[in-house]
Amino acid sequence: MSGFLSKRLSSLIPYTPGEQPKMLDLIKLNTNESPFPPSPKAQKAAAEAAKRLELYPDPQCRRLTQAVASNLGLDPDQVLMTNGSDEILYFAFLAFCDSDTPAVMADITYGFYKVYADLCGVKKNVIPLKDDFTVDVDGFCNAEGTVFLANPNAPTGLLLPLCDVERILSSKPDRVVLVDEAYVDFGGESAIKLLDRYDNLIVTRTFSKSRSMAGARLGFGAASKELIGDLNTVKYSINPYNINSMTMAAGLGVMADEEYTLENCRSIISNREYTCAELKKMGFTLTDSKTNFIFCAHPDVDGSEIYSRLREKGILVRHFDQERIKNHNRITVGSLEQMQSLLKALEEILKEK
Amino acid sequence: MSGFLSKRLSSLIPYTPGEQPKMLDLIKLNTNESPFPPSPKAQKAAAEAAKRLELYPDPQCRRLTQAVASNLGLDPDQVLMTNGSDEILYFAFLAFCDSDTPAVMADITYGFYKVYADLCGVKKNVIPLKDDFTVDVDGFCNAEGTVFLANPNAPTGLLLPLCDVERILSSKPDRVVLVDEAYVDFGGESAIKLLDRYDNLIVTRTFSKSRSMAGARLGFGAASKELIGDLNTVKYSINPYNINSMTMAAGLGVMADEEYTLENCRSIISNREYTCAELKKMGFTLTDSKTNFIFCAHPDVDGSEIYSRLREKGILVRHFDQERIKNHNRITVGSLEQMQSLLKALEEILKEK
Repeated sequence: MSGFLSKRLSSLIPYTPGEQPKMLDLIKLNTNESPFPPSPKAQKAAAEAAKRLELYPDPQCRRLTQAVASNLGLDPDQVLMTNGSDEILYFAFLAFCDSDTPAVMADITYGFYKVYADLCGVKKNVIPLKDDFTVDVDGFCNAEGTVFLANPNAPTGLLLPLCDVERILSSKPDRVVLVDEAYVDFGGESAIKLLDRYDNLIVTRTFSKSRSMAGARLGFGAASKELIGDLNTVKYSINPYNINSMTMAAGLGVMADEEYTLENCRSIISNREYTCAELKKMGFTLTDSKTNFIFCAHPDVDGSEIYSRLREKGILVRHFDQERIKNHNRITVGSLEQMQSLLKALEEILKEK
Repeated sequence: MSGFLSKRLSSLIPYTPGEQPKMLDLIKLNTNESPFPPSPKAQKAAAEAAKRLELYPDPQCRRLTQAVASNLGLDPDQVLMTNGSDEILYFAFLAFCDSDTPAVMADITYGFYKVYADLCGVKKNVIPLKDDFTVDVDGFCNAEGTVFLANPNAPTGLLLPLCDVERILSSKPDRVVLVDEAYVDFGGESAIKLLDRYDNLIVTRTFSKSRSMAGARLGFGAASKELIGDLNTVKYSINPYNINSMTMAAGLGVMADEEYTLENCRSIISNREYTCAELKKMGFTLTDSKTNFIFCAHPDVDGSEIYSRLREKGILVRHFDQERIKNHNRITVGSLEQMQSLLKALEEILKEK
C-alpha cells in the first residue's frame, strides 16, 4: 500500500480469483470453465472483428443486445451487456445500494458480493444458509436492503425453486432483488419469466460457463426498462465502451449457434450425474447440484487434504477456507475423460488413507 | 430513471461518447481513431486466442504486462493493464480521491474526469486554462487534491512541456499527479522518464490511438510499485478478469511490431502538418496540436455550422457545446485521402458563405 491510498479503501480485501496455473498439463477443475471450445461461429466472428480493431466498438452494443433480448423474449431496452457478469453486479451495487440501503446476501455465496459491498462502503445484511445449505427464504423476505441471490447458489450448487424466489420478490416490492443466474443453464429454472410481473427484479447471466466464453468476458443483466436505464447511467459514467469488438462478435456468433450450447449443457449435466453417482459410491456427501460443478465432502478425509492430494496428482479443484464449508471442495464438471481421471485419483487418495 | 436508483446518483450526467454512426460511407473523423488497421501480428494473435475462449484470461495479464514494462524500461510491477485507459482513470479516482481529497482538473480537458468525480462523489477543483488554452501551471501547483492532467490535452491538442509537468509534481509531493498520455505518441514528451524520481506520479496510456486498437479496449497505468499495488487492490475488487484473452493476445502482437506503430505515427504526424498548413491558408485558427486531431475555428463561420455542413457532406467531426470552445471543432487526423476530402469540403463551405 502507498501512503496515497484513500483511507476509505485501506482495509479492503479484494476478491481472490481461482488460480490460473502456468502448467498446461494440469486437469483444471477449479474455475467452472467449460471443457468445450467456443462455438466455431464465435471463433470465426471474433477473428473477423480482429481485422477492424482500429474503430471503437458500438457503445450501445445494439446487435448483440438485440440477439440476447430476442432469445429471451424481451425488449432490447430490457437488456444491458457487460464485461463479464461481474460488471453488471458491480453496476447494481453502485446503482441500488448506499448508506441507507444495505446489501442482503447469504453467508455462503459468490464471494464477490461481500467485496463489492465493502468497496462501495455499503453495509452487509448477511442471512446465513440453513444447516443443509438451503436458502433461508423467510430471512431474505424479512431483511432490509437490496438482495443479491445466486441461483443456483455457488459454491453449494443448490437451486432455490422459483416460487421461493417469487416470495422474496413480492415480500418487499420497494427494494431491488438481483438473481444471479450464472449457472442456470445446467438445470436451473430462470426468473426471466417473472420480469413482466416484478419491476424490482434484475436477472444476471454470464457467457463464461454454458457458452464457453470465459476468456471473452461477456455477461448481461435483464430487468425492466427503468432499471436497465439506471444501470446504463452507471455504465456510461464508468466505461461506455465496456465490451470490445471481438467479444461482441463472438457473442453474436454463439447466439447464432444455440444448438451447440444446448448440446454442451446436456453433456455437462450427464457427466455431472455420472460423477455424482460414482462419488456417492465412494462415500462422499454431495449437494444436489444444478450447476457445472460438484460440491462434496468425505467423512474420512479433510477437504483441504483432498485439495492438496488432488493437486499433487495434477488435478486442480477449488477449496474455500471458510468455516462452514472448509471440509468441502468445489469441483468443476469437465469432460467425461477428466471426470474419470478425477474419480481414479480420488479412489487412490481414499485407499491410501 | 426507476424509483430504485440511489439518490447519490440521481443527478449524475454520464459521459457522451462520440457518435458511432451506422452509415458506413461517412468519413469518420470524430473519435480520434486510427485510419490504419491493427498490426497483422495483432490480428493473427487475436484470432488464435479466439479458439481457446473457454478458459478465463490470466487475471495478472503477465505476458502483456511484461512486454509493456520492458518497452518502457520499467519493472512489470510498475504497470497495470486495463480495459481501455478509461478504466485506469476510474481506478485512480476510486483509489486516490475521496471526501477529503478533491480532483484537480482543467475546465477544458477530457470530459470523463468530471463524470468520474461526480460518480465518486468527489469535489472538483477546476483550474481554467489560460485564454490561449495553455495550462495554468501555477494554478495546478497551488491547487489541493489529486491532479488529472491530460498531456497533450484534449480537445485542445496542446502539449505541456515536461519541465512544467515536473513543477506540478514537485510542488506538492504528498498528492498524486496522474498524467494522461492518451495522445503522447503523436509528438508529445512522455513523463514515464520522471517515474524514478516521483513516487506521486501515475502515467496512463491507451492502445486505442497510435496502436489502432480502439475496438480491443486496452490501456494501462505506469507508476511506482506502491501506487500500482493500490490500483491492483481496486482492480481485484471490481473485475479481476478485466482484460479478455483476445485483447491480451492482440496487445502482445502489436507490442512485437513496434515499427508498424512508429510508421503509422509518422504518417499521422505528416498528414496533420499538411492539413494544418492548408487550413491556415483558408483562414482557420489552429492550436499547435501534438496529437492525432486538429482543434480549429474559423472567423467567418460558426463552429456548429461547420460541424453541420461537414456532416451534410458525409464528414463527421466532433463539436463540443461548451462555452469557451463552441466555435471550435475537433477533427481527427485520418489518411491523406480523408484529409483531402475534408479540405475540399471545407473550401466549399467557406465559398458558399
